[in-house]
Amino acid sequence: MVQPWQDTTLSAQARAADLLARMTREEKTAQLSSVWLGSSADETAGAEVAPGQTTYANRSAALDTLLPYGVGQLTRPFGTAPVDPAEGAARLAELQRTIRAGNRFELPALAHEECLTGFTAWQATVFPTPLAWGATFDPALITDMAQAIGTSMRAVGIHQGLAPVLDVVRDPRWGRTEETIGEDPYLVGTIGSAYVRGLETAGIIATLKHFAAYSASRAARNHAPASIGPRELADVILPPFEMAIRDGGARSVMPSYNDIDGLPAHAHQMLLTRILREQWEFSGTVVSDYYGVSLLEEAHRVADGEPGAARLALAAGVDVELPAARCFSLTDPLPEDLLDRAALRVLTQKCELGLLDTDGEPGTGGVPVDLNPPHMRELARRVAEESVVLLANDAGTLPLRDGLRISVVGPLADEEAAMMGCYTFPRHVGVHHPELPVGIDVLTLNQALRAEFPGAEFVDEPAGADVVLAVVGDRSGLFGGGSSGEGCDAEDLELPYGQGELLDEITASGAPIVVVVLSGRPYALGRWAARAAAVVQAFFPGQEGGPAVAGVLSGRVEPSGRLPIAVPRSPGGQPAPYLAPPLARNGFPSTVDPTPLYPFGHGLSYTTFAWEAPQCESPELPTDGVTSIRLTVRNTGDRPGTEIVQLYLHDPLATVAQPDVRLVGYARVPLDAGASAEVHATFPADLAAYTGADGRRVVEPGALELRLGTSSAHAHHTVPLTLTGPVREVGHQRRWRCEMRVK
Amino acid sequence: MVQPWQDTTLSAQARAADLLARMTREEKTAQLSSVWLGSSADETAGAEVAPGQTTYANRSAALDTLLPYGVGQLTRPFGTAPVDPAEGAARLAELQRTIRAGNRFELPALAHEECLTGFTAWQATVFPTPLAWGATFDPALITDMAQAIGTSMRAVGIHQGLAPVLDVVRDPRWGRTEETIGEDPYLVGTIGSAYVRGLETAGIIATLKHFAAYSASRAARNHAPASIGPRELADVILPPFEMAIRDGGARSVMPSYNDIDGLPAHAHQMLLTRILREQWEFSGTVVSDYYGVSLLEEAHRVADGEPGAARLALAAGVDVELPAARCFSLTDPLPEDLLDRAALRVLTQKCELGLLDTDGEPGTGGVPVDLNPPHMRELARRVAEESVVLLANDAGTLPLRDGLRISVVGPLADEEAAMMGCYTFPRHVGVHHPELPVGIDVLTLNQALRAEFPGAEFVDEPAGADVVLAVVGDRSGLFGGGSSGEGCDAEDLELPYGQGELLDEITASGAPIVVVVLSGRPYALGRWAARAAAVVQAFFPGQEGGPAVAGVLSGRVEPSGRLPIAVPRSPGGQPAPYLAPPLARNGFPSTVDPTPLYPFGHGLSYTTFAWEAPQCESPELPTDGVTSIRLTVRNTGDRPGTEIVQLYLHDPLATVAQPDVRLVGYARVPLDAGASAEVHATFPADLAAYTGADGRRVVEPGALELRLGTSSAHAHHTVPLTLTGPVREVGHQRRWRCEMRVK
Repeated sequence: MVQPWQDTTLSAQARAADLLARMTREEKTAQLSSVWLGSSADETAGAEVAPGQTTYANRSAALDTLLPYGVGQLTRPFGTAPVDPAEGAARLAELQRTIRAGNRFELPALAHEECLTGFTAWQATVFPTPLAWGATFDPALITDMAQAIGTSMRAVGIHQGLAPVLDVVRDPRWGRTEETIGEDPYLVGTIGSAYVRGLETAGIIATLKHFAAYSASRAARNHAPASIGPRELADVILPPFEMAIRDGGARSVMPSYNDIDGLPAHAHQMLLTRILREQWEFSGTVVSDYYGVSLLEEAHRVADGEPGAARLALAAGVDVELPAARCFSLTDPLPEDLLDRAALRVLTQKCELGLLDTDGEPGTGGVPVDLNPPHMRELARRVAEESVVLLANDAGTLPLRDGLRISVVGPLADEEAAMMGCYTFPRHVGVHHPELPVGIDVLTLNQALRAEFPGAEFVDEPAGADVVLAVVGDRSGLFGGGSSGEGCDAEDLELPYGQGELLDEITASGAPIVVVVLSGRPYALGRWAARAAAVVQAFFPGQEGGPAVAGVLSGRVEPSGRLPIAVPRSPGGQPAPYLAPPLARNGFPSTVDPTPLYPFGHGLSYTTFAWEAPQCESPELPTDGVTSIRLTVRNTGDRPGTEIVQLYLHDPLATVAQPDVRLVGYARVPLDAGASAEVHATFPADLAAYTGADGRRVVEPGALELRLGTSSAHAHHTVPLTLTGPVREVGHQRRWRCEMRVK
Repeated sequence: MVQPWQDTTLSAQARAADLLARMTREEKTAQLSSVWLGSSADETAGAEVAPGQTTYANRSAALDTLLPYGVGQLTRPFGTAPVDPAEGAARLAELQRTIRAGNRFELPALAHEECLTGFTAWQATVFPTPLAWGATFDPALITDMAQAIGTSMRAVGIHQGLAPVLDVVRDPRWGRTEETIGEDPYLVGTIGSAYVRGLETAGIIATLKHFAAYSASRAARNHAPASIGPRELADVILPPFEMAIRDGGARSVMPSYNDIDGLPAHAHQMLLTRILREQWEFSGTVVSDYYGVSLLEEAHRVADGEPGAARLALAAGVDVELPAARCFSLTDPLPEDLLDRAALRVLTQKCELGLLDTDGEPGTGGVPVDLNPPHMRELARRVAEESVVLLANDAGTLPLRDGLRISVVGPLADEEAAMMGCYTFPRHVGVHHPELPVGIDVLTLNQALRAEFPGAEFVDEPAGADVVLAVVGDRSGLFGGGSSGEGCDAEDLELPYGQGELLDEITASGAPIVVVVLSGRPYALGRWAARAAAVVQAFFPGQEGGPAVAGVLSGRVEPSGRLPIAVPRSPGGQPAPYLAPPLARNGFPSTVDPTPLYPFGHGLSYTTFAWEAPQCESPELPTDGVTSIRLTVRNTGDRPGTEIVQLYLHDPLATVAQPDVRLVGYARVPLDAGASAEVHATFPADLAAYTGADGRRVVEPGALELRLGTSSAHAHHTVPLTLTGPVREVGHQRRWRCEMRVK
């Protein structure tokens, strides 16, 4: 007989509530727990993929303990150690059968995985890192990519992906900068929401992280406290999260490790309940970051023992303890009302996923699995190509014709580690299994160059070369395993591994130099800017990154990426001034001028564009109104190219000091030689909203300035607007985007 | 006939109110204004002592315009250009006669001056910079110094001093670090209050600045926005201000230039009125920083024109516009209630100063003036001597006996600029008048060394020397005129002027090296720590600094200074972790380990001390209680010395993440060889208070740990305490200090 909770004609919430009412305390608690197989010190041989993993793993509840009560989640069945995809899928299906058989409701577990740059699994396509997604300024492409990723994950039995990272960069010394989408909340919000939409469309729960202000840690040290006030939090850090929930449909959120002005995010009731649930009406789950509940006790010291940490996190709004049940213990009776609240959310989500159905999670064992099929490689190629940023090309050195004598210098030219971010399987897990092949084809830049320039002569010495390609940047890694990545923070933005000295040497020679930066964060390039003939920046562009960068160098690929984060002039002086109001923004009265070498939004093409004067439908609009702007852009060169039309907001007078400019719209405009297109922007006054002195987010009447340009520092045209009518508070019904259509 | 407002038997407030009632709008407005003679571009020849001075000066109200209505303040009669003290006093007295004669109430102006390192006037004693006061850990001495400074200012007709700076350092790259007392709120609060007490005792109004969070500006860039939340503000930034008002009796406060989480301090009602006036019951005046009101319009862009800026500042709680009337204009009718509120405060203060009396401000012209008398030179010497910090002395290289071959290297060994901070008259104003003698005797370190070691042979080359003294550090200056000082911020903590390379060279040679740092901020010394035989740190020690440092090198002066701010190991990675909670404090899970080379509180002696186990009167005390601890310290060496007993609080479990340790008490214990003393500490539970999640400052019951030690990183003994009873909110009746008596 089908029970009410199995009745698919009822709502998910009703079915979950029915099930909850039948459950014992232990059964509810088990639903808030996870099991991480293969994570102990013995099993991983000390190769940690989470901070403190081997310390904590052996103190967590074992599968056998949980089985009779059920298992809430399964942690990283593919991302803990290398496993053949088909074998992994079969193993997971078998495990699910064991789990279903173990509890009286026959409930399977919800299986989660990492998917920051693609599915973090052996032999899966390695996409460019999120900072590269930001550089594409192409949300539609990112949605396609995420949907493909999600589909492949769902096919092997995964339900939830621990991505995207929506932290807005505040200090690029942070090792996790590569995992972010950049330093502008609008860019992070739109690209991040696009990713969420793709993943959720594929049936995978997207997990927004890290909530919140992880990126604002002191001196960019991983886990360090975030000194930040409520307005900066509301206007810079939180908008991408709200947008990804309301506009993107994300169903899970992960708190950050750090404390925010003294309150650890995992114990932050205001953040996890008042803002997330009450203001934003979020109804999904909050899953802890790995060992984040334990850290409340052991590092933040705001909780008394494991039971205290469990209560504090649960009361604040954490529903599920990851990666394994430690503080949320079967033997520690949690307060019934809090337990019910969290369990209802978890069960509702399981119901939505079909896991409460009588045939919940049939498993996919035995079917051949290709995690790196042609259409995903093609998506990886497109994202990589659109993400390469041409920063400088002073003498028209690029594109390079074939047949030159090329000298390639720099150790990273021969390393796959310069192509793949720290959450790719090869860098995250594969490095601990050197006996195993990478599992996918990844060309180093040097290999790609040799394929790209079949007629070139590759010489060893710069002296005799027509052009020197100086390849510098990062090796990604975890916790000191690289120069970029989780736990790989920097004291300054000097190129690591002595590569600055290498550039000093090379640029002191006579040959034309093209600097190619393959990195996870921007590095100070001021010392060589005057000397380099061209500079190309790519952010860990993934398995197809080598050919993409080589293609830009040859001109086969038209460069169309734009900086999602500024490149500084000098290594010190961080954090940088992006989003800062005018006072002291450009130096005086300080000896330190933080003006970047290449500003946010900057990027060149091989062709040239003319921007005609924009037409504004109505320069006056009410504080709840919308206006539209038309702009014609023409390719005035002799080759195709893509212009990124960027719209910035400048607010000349406000009740709270405002950024000099911030991004409020953008569009990719691909144009053949000589062609033109009209960009039609629909600008809602909502985008001028900011958080006032009293904490309310308002649109105020008065003058505004929209700046249409090619970067945050260069406007082609200015459109003055006047907002009229009353001060207006914006909330639920907020318009999130300036739609920009290209005709 | 004596009017009520002239009646000295009435209260100051009653007299002021009576006078206010008789005044016109213009007369009230004039009282909120100041006149800065000699500040225009013509007069100063571009030598600015305030940012933007020459831009603004010509757009301010002239003396003649104000005269018929009165003049609120006079700006820097001694600190704008060099003037002989007696002549300056006579000139000021004459000006006051003109001002009195000009208005119908015969009111003189209130004259203010800078006095950060002594009276900023030609020929006045130059004391060590405040960071050196912090290094003395000697509030009583600082009170004596401030009283002497105040007495000399009052003698020449000055009423208000724009000191002390109570900014708690958050990032020592800030150029104004030298003007602060250090990075610990308790040290800043106690030493700052001691200074206030001295100045106010002498009849000078002390002005607390900069209110607030100026030191928390992004990347330590002068004037940049402060990213800070309400709890960090309440627990780190504000305590020294509250202490200096409630415990020190300060009567004026100056807002800071920056914005705090978007709200400029000069327009910050919560800060200037709700916290300062309502919570702290402050009844003095709030005077703007120079052009701080104008910046609301021109840089923060939160005010509409000059009238808008005036209204915003006045409404927030600014009473007086400095340095000259620009936004507070006679021709712009300000709201009557706000005008009255500010004018009443100003007039009350003038009444307290005797300026409403019939013979108000008789002037002191014609009397010989010595601003650098023997007793002040003696105080300058004592502060300098107590402020020198012996950081390392690995091989017992120090003290140096006479008769050695000494090589002194480093350009700063021969410069007065390495002795005097940026607010000393010679560095602030004198640099623009090179034709004029400095006006006081200041020995360079090299000169002092030659006097200290008459039997030594000073060789030029390090190679043949018995010891090399490598003298490195800063030149103080303003707005780029030096490497330390207002507007002289740094991108990192690498020694400036290529002095790091100098140390690289010297330490590569064979001779024993003593590194002497004369600076305005700490610099990274990790690169040479293993190679230097000894390291001595002084922070711009003033006119008597040369002999003080030389005396420590010779052993004539026993080193007794302690670091008021940590010295980092490497130049990057700022801001540093002082006051950070445990998570990520020592590196993991970050590759950046911010552990300093020499921690806060560190400093060595030439003798040794033994600390006996402390006795605690009662390890349990109520949340409103007090306990006492006795500790015996013994000089176990063969020469006299001074130990600084430091008491730190460690809170193992709290509702908000707490600093690993913070200073809550200290005592100087001078001891002859073999002598011992008992230190008796009275610890009130109030010092364990912190700001909770709900914004209330509370003492919570539970376990505490007091650590008695020689630095923030080294405890000799630990005293466990248990607080009992209810959670207690602390406010007005707070006990501010842990009294530590030495018997």
